[in-house]
Parts: sequence; structure tokens; C-alpha cells
Amino acid sequence: MDSNHINNLFLRSALTEENPFMSITDVLAWIEDRKKAVFVNIEKIKFADLKEWKLDQHKGNLHHNSGRFFSIEGIEVNTNAGEVKHWCQPIIKQPEIGLLGILTKEIDGILYFLLQAKIEPGNINFVQLAPTLQATESNFKQVHKGNKPEFLEYFINPDQDAVMLNQLQSEQGARFLKKRNRNIIVYTKDKIKERDDFIWLTLGQIKKLMAHDNLVNMDTRTVISGIPYGRYNSDQLALFETYNVKNNENTFSYDLLRSSLDYDSALHSYDEIIGWFTSLKTKYELEVKQKSLFDLKYWDIGEWEISNKNNKYFKIFVANINIENREVRSWQQPLIKPVDDGIIAFIIKKINGIMHLLVQAKLECGNYDVLEMAPSVQCITDSYDASEGLPFLNYVLNASPEQIKLDTLQSEEGGRFYQEQNRNMIIQANEDFPKEIPENYIWMTISQLNMFLKFNNYLNIQSRSLLAAVDFLQKFEFISGDL
Amino acid sequence: MDSNHINNLFLRSALTEENPFMSITDVLAWIEDRKKAVFVNIEKIKFADLKEWKLDQHKGNLHHNSGRFFSIEGIEVNTNAGEVKHWCQPIIKQPEIGLLGILTKEIDGILYFLLQAKIEPGNINFVQLAPTLQATESNFKQVHKGNKPEFLEYFINPDQDAVMLNQLQSEQGARFLKKRNRNIIVYTKDKIKERDDFIWLTLGQIKKLMAHDNLVNMDTRTVISGIPYGRYNSDQLALFETYNVKNNENTFSYDLLRSSLDYDSALHSYDEIIGWFTSLKTKYELEVKQKSLFDLKYWDIGEWEISNKNNKYFKIFVANINIENREVRSWQQPLIKPVDDGIIAFIIKKINGIMHLLVQAKLECGNYDVLEMAPSVQCITDSYDASEGLPFLNYVLNASPEQIKLDTLQSEEGGRFYQEQNRNMIIQANEDFPKEIPENYIWMTISQLNMFLKFNNYLNIQSRSLLAAVDFLQKFEFISGDL
Repeated sequence: MDSNHINNLFLRSALTEENPFMSITDVLAWIEDRKKAVFVNIEKIKFADLKEWKLDQHKGNLHHNSGRFFSIEGIEVNTNAGEVKHWCQPIIKQPEIGLLGILTKEIDGILYFLLQAKIEPGNINFVQLAPTLQATESNFKQVHKGNKPEFLEYFINPDQDAVMLNQLQSEQGARFLKKRNRNIIVYTKDKIKERDDFIWLTLGQIKKLMAHDNLVNMDTRTVISGIPYGRYNSDQLALFETYNVKNNENTFSYDLLRSSLDYDSALHSYDEIIGWFTSLKTKYELEVKQKSLFDLKYWDIGEWEISNKNNKYFKIFVANINIENREVRSWQQPLIKPVDDGIIAFIIKKINGIMHLLVQAKLECGNYDVLEMAPSVQCITDSYDASEGLPFLNYVLNASPEQIKLDTLQSEEGGRFYQEQNRNMIIQANEDFPKEIPENYIWMTISQLNMFLKFNNYLNIQSRSLLAAVDFLQKFEFISGDL
Repeated sequence: MDSNHINNLFLRSALTEENPFMSITDVLAWIEDRKKAVFVNIEKIKFADLKEWKLDQHKGNLHHNSGRFFSIEGIEVNTNAGEVKHWCQPIIKQPEIGLLGILTKEIDGILYFLLQAKIEPGNINFVQLAPTLQATESNFKQVHKGNKPEFLEYFINPDQDAVMLNQLQSEQGARFLKKRNRNIIVYTKDKIKERDDFIWLTLGQIKKLMAHDNLVNMDTRTVISGIPYGRYNSDQLALFETYNVKNNENTFSYDLLRSSLDYDSALHSYDEIIGWFTSLKTKYELEVKQKSLFDLKYWDIGEWEISNKNNKYFKIFVANINIENREVRSWQQPLIKPVDDGIIAFIIKKINGIMHLLVQAKLECGNYDVLEMAPSVQCITDSYDASEGLPFLNYVLNASPEQIKLDTLQSEEGGRFYQEQNRNMIIQANEDFPKEIPENYIWMTISQLNMFLKFNNYLNIQSRSLLAAVDFLQKFEFISGDL
């Protein structure tokens, strides 16, 4: 497919909340039904009771007997960035590239996305809206001898002309060691038979659902975040006219749309942003050495869990999982449980007439390339007190109701993380917002963030989660006129 | 500086061969003078006679006594790409980010670049045109207690408004383990006093000099390759009118210019190219394990050199170096000597009216991220016979004189490599060129390559070397008219 056509299909779907087959209310009811239709039991067990995994003193890690899936390893980190320059921690190692795929089809010119009600052991509410396919390499190769994942054939060797998006994107740099997933969207004209666990939604609906707590899972959010809408052009102009979009009194959503499409009015050029990032990558050093889980300073391995001596960050425990409605119904695995919730927030501000987001260059130990672009604020809640020095945290926490444009709780990936959620916020800065920002912050438009996102290893998963939630239909009024 | 202004300064300088201060002939004579003004002696010695370095059986490497500069390590490589899936080799490890900086100034609206006649032990002809500053972190910190490098102050903490380019770029992935350099161009209004070893040249002149063998060093070429010319716009239109550039009968240089500026007419969109690259990165695996230099299969460590048992690839020897006209006049260091010369070539072809280059996704063991974008052909000469299966090699070697648009010998970096040169070629494809290309090849315009280059870890040093040589003034005729 021609890329302009792809961009326009995406944009039109993002501007469409009306779905004749399933309304937002229907989706919410359907999810409740799915929850009732499954049985989930997570039984925390002792490391000594593991049969499928091994806490291995000799190898210094926690690994599956097959050597596949993932392992929990120890690392020692040295850096010259931030307050803490040296620490040890457990981290997830999973060298394979996972696959997060969404299938789409077109009905009456509108693109629909096939999402799945997926049960994951760590999910708050157990059931969340996942991509059509969410699979690790071990899944493809069916190591655990479950059923072949549904729709796998659409993503393994897709017809090039059907591929609408195909990117490598990072997972949490504080939890995964250089882990990346392939994010892919494939278009089909096949007749797909209805299935209990799958629904077709417009992009506008998915974004609306992201305003609900813990409903759209992280994997869906990361795939959605990469969607390109193209550069503002005559095709789009025609599209807007169809939708009668106009810059009216309620300008907020219009501002988001313009910031997503306008490639020419940003405060900084790409070369300037790359120069800024290059300077910081040159300045900040990151050295990560593997170390036995049993030798990590300030970490304890107990009978039941691996935990930090000061009860900070996260714990790792193992569990017997029983779930109906998955490829494998019963298995053991480690889960990572945060000690506290976190907060991620983009501060946004109109500069030179176009909406800009305040982006932070953030070093995390598992990053593929030292730094990634993170939200204006990204921290865990229990560090609130300690982090009075954290730039912009107080600004975000003290925002007035009119400034808060998004405020929801969103889950981390429930296949690894146990009931971990972050408060996702978009805060509009007032005129009094400081002109001077620290050296590792920069203002960028949404289209610029989208461009960096394309080129992979730039935007971290937290900033992608927030970008995915950007909703062009937020209190949007359609009035005919120009953009 | 505004980025449009920067782009236009670069473009205008690239279109300027007239330099009232120094003609191309003057430069050639000046380089000859510089050669006569220095004394260079490279004395190959036994490993046993090293005083400043140590071939260390215990650590399994060859390292400097201070632990700084670089070391030669052993690696074992496993991959599922290419013919050879498993091998061992020595590799250069240098974790610090080097700095390659060029200072520029403007005279009568034309940008001039300050280049240095630099003597490096491995250089063919000893003296080549280097960036204003070429320094490792060890240099800044003056580990070898030489003089402070000249012009260092311009590049360490430059005024942001003076930075015209600031990128991280890779070195040879077959020789360096994930080595990167910072490529930086800084603008100054200072009065720079004349120095014997430095000259001011236009970008057009530097490109002309790249048509000469082994004159412009690799570090200059990589910095030059990253220069942006901007998107075809009204400013540029005015600029072309000034220069009376026109699509005339001799269209080749015009085609290069258009391919560098036109962002809208490419065969594939960015999203398509990224999708292609993502698929290949997902498919190809690369595992690199450190291993003692003394345990590398098919490699011997002799009294005088480290070499491959089949006499392939390269040798490593150590030498006493004596050079006048450098920070340190006398030192010991390892040098890497290739067994044979190499060839790198871009095949170019007009597709949909715009010049495209045939780009290869190439896996090399030291790559930062598995694959980089390489020229259409990249190999070493002694593999010619063995590599009848190497795509497009025969096409390049059998090109007719009219097809050969560039054919020069260019040196690798003389600070590490001993008299290593590659034949650099640009070959224009005929109509009979195969429509079908292997899955790891794709056609891209120059502007697209330049965009990927910006985002770092995409273009390998060989493709950058060729891009740097793209000369808009090659047999260029100025006739008034539109682009």
C-alpha cells in the first residue's frame, strides 16, 4: 500500500469513534463478560517448590528448565548520570525479539483493529485489551506445547504490501536488559470468522478506551503509539473537510492534531534535537556487568521472594498459575511486583503556535543505547518524598484541574509484572512555566516524537504509552473550515 | 543558527569550487610540502620488545600499560546470516567515544572548513587531510602527556548556537567492537591565526579532493557525509538561481543534487524502509562472546604478529613509531594490516525520475545493532574468486567506462590501520539491471540515506565514505532555469 494511503487510513480511523458493530459501552460490557468467563488463580510458592524453573546458585540466576522464555539475572551498574552512580539489581533477560501484532481490516473506508481480551497472570482485573497476537519466539516455536497462537500466520511472513507498520521498540529499561519487541500492523481482506475473545475497534475507540484505567494493555499501547499520520498535505486537507475539523474555541484536540501533522513549525530542527541527544550520550556513561543474583549488594534472596533490603523498587516471587482461556492453562513463572505505583507525565505547552511536549533524556540500565527519550516526569511513587529535587514532579502533582488533560492508571505488561500500574498524565503548562529547563530536557512536537519513535531505540515505553493516549477526539467539535 | 540557514550554507559551499585563498592545485602542492616537512619512521618490533603495551596471556588481550587508549581482544561470533555462521577473530575494543570535529567560518557568504594535514603512522603517503580536531577521550585527558590538541576548546563545550552538526557515527563493524565517534561541525566568528598545518577549504573543494587517491582521510569523510542540505524549498530555489543550476544534457550531477534534496519522490517511504530493516533485524541473530586472544580458532600468535592460519583477513603487528609534527613524537602501538585491498561500491539508478542507490543491510560482528546499511558491494579483494556468489560484484567489476562515476582509492583510519585502502566506486546501472534484488537490498534516494545517517547506527562507515564523495560539481554545467 502507498504510504499516504496508509497514513490517511490511520488518521481517519483515529477520527472515528462511531462503530456500528460495537460501541464503547458494548466494549466495556463485553470485557466484563470475558472476565466472568475465565478462572484465574495465582498461587505464590516457595522457590524450593519450583519444578519448571530453577533458582540456580551455580549459574547465579533464575531460569526455566528448558533454558528458554526468560531468566532473572543480576547486574551491577556504574554510571556518571543522576544521583545514584552505582547499584546492583535483578533484571529480566530475554534475548529474543517478541512479536506484537495487530490485524486490521477496512469497512466502508474506515480501518478497524482486531483486539483480543487477553488474560495475563499479572493483570489488574486479569482481562485487558491486547493486540491480535502477542507472542515470544518461544511461543512461535511452541516450546510449551500449547496450541499454536491464533492469527500467527498473518504476522510470520506477511505480504509486504499488507504491512502498515513494522518497528522494533524497547521495553522498560529499568526492568529488561536490552529487550525489544517487533511492533507490527498488518492489513487483511480475508473474511475473519468471529471469535469470542476478539473484537474490531476503530483507532478513535481504542484511544477513548485508554482514558479508562487498566483496560488497554501495554502491548496494545506500544503498537498504537507508532502509528504514523503523515505530513499535513492536500489528502489530509480533504479528509479534514470531510470531518469538518476546525480550529474552534475548544482548541485543545485541534492543537494535538496539528502538532501531530505539522513537520515545519517546531521549536528545534531534527538536527538540533539529534545534536542535543548526541551531546548527552557522549557525556553520560553506562557500564552494566553481569553478576550472580546471589551477590547483589542490598538484595536478599528469601524462601519466598527476592527483595531489596530497604524494601524499595520491586520484589520477585514465583507462582503456580492457573488460567483458562490461554494456550497453556497451567504453569509456573516468576512475577515482578513493584513496591509502589509510579507516575509518568508529559508537560505540554504551545510554543510558536504549536503544541510541544517536554521530553527528558533518561538513562536506564537496560537501555539498548544509554539514553532514551522519556516523559517530562517518570518516577515511582515511594520516591516522591525523596525526590523533591526531581524536575517538574511538583509542577505535575500540583496542576489545577483545567491543566490536567489526561489522568488514568495504566498497567505494565501482565506477563511479567504483577499488578504494576503507573499514573499516566498529560499536563498543560501555564504561562508561568519556567523558560529555563535542565540540560537533559527539550521541547518537541508530537510529529517529531513520532519521527524519532519510527527510527527505534529513541522513545522509551513510558513515553510511547503516553503518546498512544493522545486523543484527537477529546472534547472535539467539528466545524467546517481550514486547519 | 536556524537550520534552514545551516542547510543553505552547506549547500552553497558544496556548490563552490572557487576558493580565492587556495585552489585545488595549491592544496596538492601544500600537501606535498607537508610531507617533506615531516619525518616518519615505523619500525616493526617483536611483541616481546613492547614496553608501553603488553600482550597479556592472563587477560587474553593486547593492552596499553595504562589500561587506556584501546585494546585488541578476541571474540567468538555466532550468527544465522551469510555463508559463514561461526568464527573467531581479534577485534579492537575502545569503549570511549572519539571526537571528530571540523571548525568552519564564513567569508562573503561562503562556508569554509578548517582541515589539517595530519600524519598518522598507518597512512599511505603519511600525510592526509584530517578534520580540525581528531581526538580520543584519552587525548582530551592527555594521558600520553603530549601537548593539548589544537582547537580542542571549540569542541568540548561549544555554544549550542554555533553547532552545525553533532552526530554519533559507527566505525568499521568488522574491526571495532561497537566503536562510535562523535562527528561535530562548529561555526566560529573568531579570528583564527594561520598555522602551517591547517587550511580553509570549501565543501566543493573537499569533494573534488576525494576524487584523488588517499588524500582526504576517513575521519574527514565521515564528518562530511553527515552534512544536511535540507529539503528542496524556496530558499534553495533562490540559491540555485544564483548558481544558474539547470537540468541540462549532462544531467548526472543534477540528478545527484535532486536525489539529495527531494524528500517526496522516493520509491519507498521511510515507514517501508524501516519495516524492511525491522524484518531483517528480527531474522538475523548476532551473538558475540569475548574470548582470549590466545584461544581463537584459526588464529596464530607469533613473535612478530597475530595472523590468520589461512593468511586471510588481516594481521596485527606492533611498532615503534617516530613522527614529528604530532602531539607525541614517539610511541609504541599495535597496527592492523589488511591482507588485501577491499572494494566498496554503490550502484545507482534512476527510478521514477529520481536517482536511487542500492543499499545493503549488512551484518558485521562489531555492529552496535546487528545490521547497518552498507554499499551495494562491500568485500575484500582476496575474496573475489571465492565470492562469485556475492551479489552485484561482477556487475561492478565489469562496468563500462561510461557507467563508472567514481573510482578512487581511499584509506581507512591511519591511527589503527596500516596502509589499508578500499577502492571506492559509484556505478550507474544500465536499463538491463535486474529488477529483482535479494531480500537484504533496497533502493533509496540520497536524501533518505542522509536521513537515516542522522539518526545514527544506521549507515556503516563504508556507505558514509561513498556518500561523502557525492559531488554536485562533477562535470556540472550551470545554465539558468528551474530545478
